Amino acid sequence: MEISFFNGKFLPKDEIRISPDDRGFLFADGIYEVVRWYEGFFYDMDGHMARLRRSLKEVKISWPEADSFPSIALDLVKRNNISDYPVLVYLQVTRGVAKRTHAFPAPPVEPTVYALARKFHPDSEIMKNGIGIILRKDIRWTRCDIKSVSLLPNILLFQEAMDLNCSECIFSRDGLITEGSHSNVFFVIDGVLFTHPESENVLSGITRNNVLRIARKNGIPVSETAVKEDMIHSVSEAFITNTSSEVGPVIAINGNLLGNGKPGELTEFLQKKFREELITLKG
Amino acid sequence: MEISFFNGKFLPKDEIRISPDDRGFLFADGIYEVVRWYEGFFYDMDGHMARLRRSLKEVKISWPEADSFPSIALDLVKRNNISDYPVLVYLQVTRGVAKRTHAFPAPPVEPTVYALARKFHPDSEIMKNGIGIILRKDIRWTRCDIKSVSLLPNILLFQEAMDLNCSECIFSRDGLITEGSHSNVFFVIDGVLFTHPESENVLSGITRNNVLRIARKNGIPVSETAVKEDMIHSVSEAFITNTSSEVGPVIAINGNLLGNGKPGELTEFLQKKFREELITLKG
Repeated sequence: MEISFFNGKFLPKDEIRISPDDRGFLFADGIYEVVRWYEGFFYDMDGHMARLRRSLKEVKISWPEADSFPSIALDLVKRNNISDYPVLVYLQVTRGVAKRTHAFPAPPVEPTVYALARKFHPDSEIMKNGIGIILRKDIRWTRCDIKSVSLLPNILLFQEAMDLNCSECIFSRDGLITEGSHSNVFFVIDGVLFTHPESENVLSGITRNNVLRIARKNGIPVSETAVKEDMIHSVSEAFITNTSSEVGPVIAINGNLLGNGKPGELTEFLQKKFREELITLKG
Repeated sequence: MEISFFNGKFLPKDEIRISPDDRGFLFADGIYEVVRWYEGFFYDMDGHMARLRRSLKEVKISWPEADSFPSIALDLVKRNNISDYPVLVYLQVTRGVAKRTHAFPAPPVEPTVYALARKFHPDSEIMKNGIGIILRKDIRWTRCDIKSVSLLPNILLFQEAMDLNCSECIFSRDGLITEGSHSNVFFVIDGVLFTHPESENVLSGITRNNVLRIARKNGIPVSETAVKEDMIHSVSEAFITNTSSEVGPVIAINGNLLGNGKPGELTEFLQKKFREELITLKG
């Protein structure tokens, strides 16, 4: 029986029901986080906690017990007896339940807090062989730095990628490549590793930030500068990063192979270094 | 006891519970409509139905029974014994319940269909005396023509208006005024009635379209052209339109009074003509 967390209680998942007046359901008025459990520890929980607090602050949702999330996440892993597996813990916090009107509930109501832990199978074939992605116009709002559940644009464009047998859709805004529907994206041009700088147009990805740190530590030239869409022909390697895929090699964009259509050298180097850190963290 | 509609059944509202796996809750993967009952009839149900079908099509949600909405709406009014009152009927359709992953569920699942009817008190003071509004940068996605529940940007900016004792926030994108957080907006400049043309940047408002029709029928010069933000000083009158407010006079923008700070002549004329049509429709 799957145990989830809902408003302060651990409950069988099928007992959890959301009110139709929940502002998450009616207005996408909420935020989320996803943390990864590596058979013994959560990867960069501090990074996730800092982003969680920031998301809550930016959308003005008050969850006074936010600091309890690491212990909720650990409890979920233990109660579901999955601590020996790779696990994703999903957390969603909405502004709560109130009669439908655009204004924030006044006085404020308790936020809705929902979390679940689920065994997860990293797709090692894709990490080894790489993925095809598509590039589309960024149709999302201008506050992509907030990890909100207002994800319909991401859904529609990710599905377009799926329909074209691709595994992700990356976006360009005003001619500059921003990020993917649920990943950050990196490019190698002339030996330099590029990714969009932190701004309101991209999520401050936890894996993104750690990959940048690892690259710098290993003496790889890094530039947090957006790659122009019309520079795509100069790209020799590309990869996406997120909590579930870690470093995911990209071998084709819009059907055009990158280089020889195999994961690039620098990509594989960063995958290896990322994995080595995990082994050290595991101790 | 409030009776709502949920997935084919009429149920007491407090028995309706949304699954935490509902894609409406997790991803804002859904659309909505709001129709108004005028003590005896729904206003322009055909217009709402055309927009509902279009929203579903644009987000690729299949609800084969969409044509049943007018009878569901009428049933809700009757079952709640509120047919002698002004009522708003709210409908939300999401892509349904499935384990969380960005891709559309494959094979598709049944959509979640939820509707409720609620007595509603038109704010006649505001319609008579007008409202103050604020103008902010349009931070929303680029498909505002779809009536989706991905509304977090609208919520945040509407709340900013509330915090400033204003009643709506209108947006400008690339220097052009688009619409409000839950209304369309009209301006009068040199006796011509302006509003943003239909495009992906604005919702095709039912009240908007009827007000345009009424204006043209009455010989008022109309231009479906976006007003530039820097033309705001030339505006002599402004009003917002939506299903609940009908024609709502605007008397101040960002704290600056329009004209003498009273509802404009053309605005009051259109309010009157709109009301006259309602009396005719009521028969």
